[in-house]
Amino acid sequence: MAIIKNGTVIYAEHPTNHIVPGVTTKYIEEDIDLDNVPLNGGVLIKTLALSSDPYMRYRMRDPSIPMFCPVVPLGQPLDNFGVGTIVRSEDPAFKPGDFVDGFINFQEYSVWPGPPEQQHVLRYLTKIDRAPGLPATIYTGTLGLAGKSAYSAYDVLAKEKSLESKVLFVSGAAGPVGTFVVEYARICNPNLKIIGSAGSAAKIEILKKIGCDVTINYKEQDTAAILKEHGPIDIYWDNTSGATLDAALKNMSFFGLIVACGAISAASNNGDGSIVRNFEEVFQRSIAIRGFVYGMGEPAKVLPEFYEKATKLVLEGKITSREHRFNGLREAGEALEVVHSGKNTGKAVIVVRDE
Amino acid sequence: MAIIKNGTVIYAEHPTNHIVPGVTTKYIEEDIDLDNVPLNGGVLIKTLALSSDPYMRYRMRDPSIPMFCPVVPLGQPLDNFGVGTIVRSEDPAFKPGDFVDGFINFQEYSVWPGPPEQQHVLRYLTKIDRAPGLPATIYTGTLGLAGKSAYSAYDVLAKEKSLESKVLFVSGAAGPVGTFVVEYARICNPNLKIIGSAGSAAKIEILKKIGCDVTINYKEQDTAAILKEHGPIDIYWDNTSGATLDAALKNMSFFGLIVACGAISAASNNGDGSIVRNFEEVFQRSIAIRGFVYGMGEPAKVLPEFYEKATKLVLEGKITSREHRFNGLREAGEALEVVHSGKNTGKAVIVVRDE
Repeated sequence: MAIIKNGTVIYAEHPTNHIVPGVTTKYIEEDIDLDNVPLNGGVLIKTLALSSDPYMRYRMRDPSIPMFCPVVPLGQPLDNFGVGTIVRSEDPAFKPGDFVDGFINFQEYSVWPGPPEQQHVLRYLTKIDRAPGLPATIYTGTLGLAGKSAYSAYDVLAKEKSLESKVLFVSGAAGPVGTFVVEYARICNPNLKIIGSAGSAAKIEILKKIGCDVTINYKEQDTAAILKEHGPIDIYWDNTSGATLDAALKNMSFFGLIVACGAISAASNNGDGSIVRNFEEVFQRSIAIRGFVYGMGEPAKVLPEFYEKATKLVLEGKITSREHRFNGLREAGEALEVVHSGKNTGKAVIVVRDE
Repeated sequence: MAIIKNGTVIYAEHPTNHIVPGVTTKYIEEDIDLDNVPLNGGVLIKTLALSSDPYMRYRMRDPSIPMFCPVVPLGQPLDNFGVGTIVRSEDPAFKPGDFVDGFINFQEYSVWPGPPEQQHVLRYLTKIDRAPGLPATIYTGTLGLAGKSAYSAYDVLAKEKSLESKVLFVSGAAGPVGTFVVEYARICNPNLKIIGSAGSAAKIEILKKIGCDVTINYKEQDTAAILKEHGPIDIYWDNTSGATLDAALKNMSFFGLIVACGAISAASNNGDGSIVRNFEEVFQRSIAIRGFVYGMGEPAKVLPEFYEKATKLVLEGKITSREHRFNGLREAGEALEVVHSGKNTGKAVIVVRDE
């Protein structure tokens, strides 16, 4: 090892609407001395893969706007859920070669924990007993934030009701949270009619492969009409809010359940994309809605069992994965953008380096 | 008794927006022979008072629009929760002079159950042991639909959480549901900070009298700013939806609870009044929302205890009432309209005849 160029993606400018690669985010290179960079009791991580998640748009905002997640300070490296290997360690919990999951900087190499200005609220690092045969990247999606969100919230908030339900509707169903929910719901109740919606022909193919009984291309079909034909909906897993939520509200069962997992229509659009017009259906149909943020509240209680249970389902082929790979940190900005424009097919993952 | 003129309010025309007295509803008189009108095994009721509730707008709609409550057929008498006395009876469950609560026609006298075209889903009739000293009209409000809705839903959905909560916000707080919720919440947890909103100076006076710690005249003040100053809100009782719900969503606690009781902003306006823009806060703050319709689901379980418990609280002065009285069925249309325009102060009740 020696002094090398260390690729880094910094948060350069608050986006007014969409993330613009090269403007909102900038790829730079700085020298790093892998042998001698001070660890200050921490570790040096070689980054393997980083997750691109829709919520990252919320972290890229003016810090005067209060929100559930911390901002990335301007000029600092982005960070998010990712995986890597330990290169050097002054921390007795880690040794060189360990495979780790954590909140990792968008850098090829990074010291963890970094300097104070890079230590955000979500910082954590955990050694993982990686299952043989599984790619590192799966730990950023199906066995990462997306899978953990889907598993914990469905298991705690929806599983019991699903046993006596007939119809489940999942929006954003071709994304890594959506496909996990569809497949896990099928495991919990094989008799469910599962309706999935997504926004491209390629995504509709995914929905068919993972076993959706009914598919909706919301850009080309009338979501409300299809829900009316195949409903009423007992459980709606909402990844979108906006117009799709409105269509679902008009087609819910009495005493139906909505799990509010995300609002990509709001996160991806300033203004009208987030409008909901049919909220009055909530009282008229005695609907219960449960919002959740990964890792908080009741759903978090089942996270300790996640790796054991989910890894088994993955190895059995019952929970499947698809990846949209972005190669190298130079493509990180694009990876962050596509999850809002919907151009990706499969989990957007930044492969920082092949193993 | 003899043949007399029987005042009746019929549903004359579907409203396109607001209820227009004399157009949407029409007062007519028809002969009725009180001694000889056939009862067909039922009873003849002398109507004392009828409730005017916002949801009646939903019953006055084109029947092609599916909804939680049945329509009133055009040309038929309106009906709603009301009280009366039994004049004649062929039903062994009732005898002349009995004080009854039921789903009663907007008629001075009516046969119950009426002809098939007047038998809607909600039809019921119950004898009530009326508490000495209480006016008949209270059984259309504080001890009627409004009180039963407030008591049952707060008790089942919110009471337990209220014990560990600091701030409750109630919109439409000067109405009969709102005042009951405010006063009952205070009984459940005397330490709650209670914020109430309403739309006139007279209503704000009511909020102060019933013990709201903070009041908001939403037509003159910035709801969101006041909620921000006095929040975050642990429990929001939503009678309005729309802009007030949006202000609440931005000021909820993590793991806050919203009880969705009504959507007067939607029921009272075609179009933009019902728009909700901040639904994404539901997942970002891990909010739970529970919608309910009176008499259905979990809240209905505590209804059997309602009269005993609520009457005691009323007699002790802990639950108070205010009435906006409309005299005679000729004023019924106006009574139905004001609960949407907000011109009433206190429970809108149609006093069909003084006792």
